Amino acid sequence: MSHSEIPGGVTAAQGFQAGSIYCGIKTANKSAPDIALIVSSTKAVAAGTFTTNKVKAAPVRVSRTRLASPDVRAIVANAGNANACTGVPGLENAKRMCVATAGALGLHEKQIMVCSTGRIGVQLPIEKMEATLAKSAQCLSLNGSAAAARAIMTSDTFPKEFAVEFSAHGKKIRIGGIAKGAGMIDPNMATMLCFITTDANISRTTLQKALSVSVEQSFNRITIDGDMSTNDTVLALANGTAGNKPIKYGTKEFKAFQAALDDVTRELAWMIVKDGEGVTKFVEVHVHGASTLADARRAAEAIANSTLVKCAWFGQDPNWGRIMDALGYSGAKMREELVDIYYDGVLAVKGGMLAKTPFDKLREIVKQNRFTVCVDLNLGRSEHIVYTTDFTMEYVKLNMGDGTGG
Amino acid sequence: MSHSEIPGGVTAAQGFQAGSIYCGIKTANKSAPDIALIVSSTKAVAAGTFTTNKVKAAPVRVSRTRLASPDVRAIVANAGNANACTGVPGLENAKRMCVATAGALGLHEKQIMVCSTGRIGVQLPIEKMEATLAKSAQCLSLNGSAAAARAIMTSDTFPKEFAVEFSAHGKKIRIGGIAKGAGMIDPNMATMLCFITTDANISRTTLQKALSVSVEQSFNRITIDGDMSTNDTVLALANGTAGNKPIKYGTKEFKAFQAALDDVTRELAWMIVKDGEGVTKFVEVHVHGASTLADARRAAEAIANSTLVKCAWFGQDPNWGRIMDALGYSGAKMREELVDIYYDGVLAVKGGMLAKTPFDKLREIVKQNRFTVCVDLNLGRSEHIVYTTDFTMEYVKLNMGDGTGG
Repeated sequence: MSHSEIPGGVTAAQGFQAGSIYCGIKTANKSAPDIALIVSSTKAVAAGTFTTNKVKAAPVRVSRTRLASPDVRAIVANAGNANACTGVPGLENAKRMCVATAGALGLHEKQIMVCSTGRIGVQLPIEKMEATLAKSAQCLSLNGSAAAARAIMTSDTFPKEFAVEFSAHGKKIRIGGIAKGAGMIDPNMATMLCFITTDANISRTTLQKALSVSVEQSFNRITIDGDMSTNDTVLALANGTAGNKPIKYGTKEFKAFQAALDDVTRELAWMIVKDGEGVTKFVEVHVHGASTLADARRAAEAIANSTLVKCAWFGQDPNWGRIMDALGYSGAKMREELVDIYYDGVLAVKGGMLAKTPFDKLREIVKQNRFTVCVDLNLGRSEHIVYTTDFTMEYVKLNMGDGTGG
Repeated sequence: MSHSEIPGGVTAAQGFQAGSIYCGIKTANKSAPDIALIVSSTKAVAAGTFTTNKVKAAPVRVSRTRLASPDVRAIVANAGNANACTGVPGLENAKRMCVATAGALGLHEKQIMVCSTGRIGVQLPIEKMEATLAKSAQCLSLNGSAAAARAIMTSDTFPKEFAVEFSAHGKKIRIGGIAKGAGMIDPNMATMLCFITTDANISRTTLQKALSVSVEQSFNRITIDGDMSTNDTVLALANGTAGNKPIKYGTKEFKAFQAALDDVTRELAWMIVKDGEGVTKFVEVHVHGASTLADARRAAEAIANSTLVKCAWFGQDPNWGRIMDALGYSGAKMREELVDIYYDGVLAVKGGMLAKTPFDKLREIVKQNRFTVCVDLNLGRSEHIVYTTDFTMEYVKLNMGDGTGG
């Protein structure tokens, strides 16, 4: 029951259409479509995970309350304005986006999930959006995934889509999605949106269990700048169009579903990392031999979030002193004299000290645009992986702000 | 009993000499002196605070054990090599630095405190250092503070010295110091060294109490890149040459001593921030109205360590959305709708939303090279201050490494 990649992104699953429309919300790239729509032609259940930031954007607050609905039909998402830190008017505007979308699609507002990404602290141009959304039904198509993926881009440089299919109970099941990232990417859901659709017949609670596990293995393991955003959202819709018998939790069909979903979320998460602002390198940080899972995570995240470590990688420097330093302040239990560090399996540090590996060999590894740093704390059996990047002058340049304060 | 600034740095206090010698340890700026010496002509007591990083450099381990000695006479410090992650040979070398210095000064090795700063993971050129240290007595002078301050510089761009004097029990008492910073500067003692001398007559335990409070108000409140180093050390020597009656804890003389010491450590800490790598702005982050002191600290440090916030400041952008975001993930208790944010006292955010202040007014403030960000969480009565900087392309450039891995 293994799965395989298929084209189609968020419209790969049967019974889903997507598309994009232009409203004029984006401040950069002003002529680009800025509202994405994803619609199920039949009844669907929804699952979701949201930012853990205490400052939550209005659409996050609205969408969370709609997860429990037995019939969710559509996702509407705009880029260019995050509708965050916008108070009561912001909440009202998020709901008006749902009402306008529902009106255009002949649905009830409670059947609509809403997302926003972009500038913080500015009210949405809601009248203009309502006028645009009124005509949004005509943008939908069975091939609309790429258009929707492009519409939600902010500082992203390429659209992100991925889909797989597998068989269960003799039926073909498809899972696909789109995502956007760039900037403020950190574990626990950072400035990223991800929308997943599947034609599997699966209950809302089972879908939620699978999605929560999958997000933990993917979006919660990526970090670019250590900042967490106010808007991060992963939503999944399942409409049962595949006609399979319901996928029950814990069965072999569930395991196949989970594996396929994990592949979709991991691929989309990796695309987000690779498209991080100013990024030149994709780095996997593995920590082994930690006393506890929490320690493994602390150690891996301290390395992946150290600006000094990341600047060294950008400079093609297989720096390990800064990795030791990050381990030392991570809060993880560690004993300096037990630490081994490898770059792509080649020993750099043995027992907390410089290994005998010729330096040029390590340097060749760090010159690549993708490599793995593996740390063995040699204390216990817990491990954790984080996917991250280098840290570049281009990142600083991209994040200097445009002086408009939001 | 207020104090006033005087010249002389670490040799302002009577009975102290300092100087520098050249050994050839620094990899950059190779012709510059790289060993500093500070010596008391009479018996002195010592106090110290050290890095909280679990990876502690060899000299940190050696110096810690010598704090309890009733007669500390000298500090020897080299730049260019941190003697960190150097295992048992590193410990041995730190002790050999003490032995060589003691030999040159006619002292016992246990009377010497040792410090190192620079590259991690490389053994010291100890034979060369021993030969150099053998001739070190001749470098000492009553005006040697600036030379010593220069010798401990790594990526620092200017030497850091400050001294004050005040009167107690009818005697003039002097406190002065030197420091080095730049790179890996974070609360809880980052890559920085600070050496303080005083001619006050004060017991070891009273000096330690005053120093611990003082470090908490100064060096533990500065942050540049959120990284903490393996070598951070603040040492203070008191030799009683002023001839005052012993300063007892809790007396008005102690309070005068504490205030003077606080001024020395704060000035030196601020110099470190202002000389942070690639820095263009000095920013004070005040958090008021927190529920607890821990919350106030978390909130202030989250703002001061957010690369996105710091990049915006570099771009002269009075960004407040990123400050709200940082507050939201800081872990501090907060309610979005209660948050007020001020730039230099001018309201930017009221109740979690954009205030009515004209944007240009805020922008003018952030254009300055020094300003204050004040956040009121409006929840409780706890507050905290952190001193920090912007984050620049120059920082990344300076920290790309030279490709030599250490």
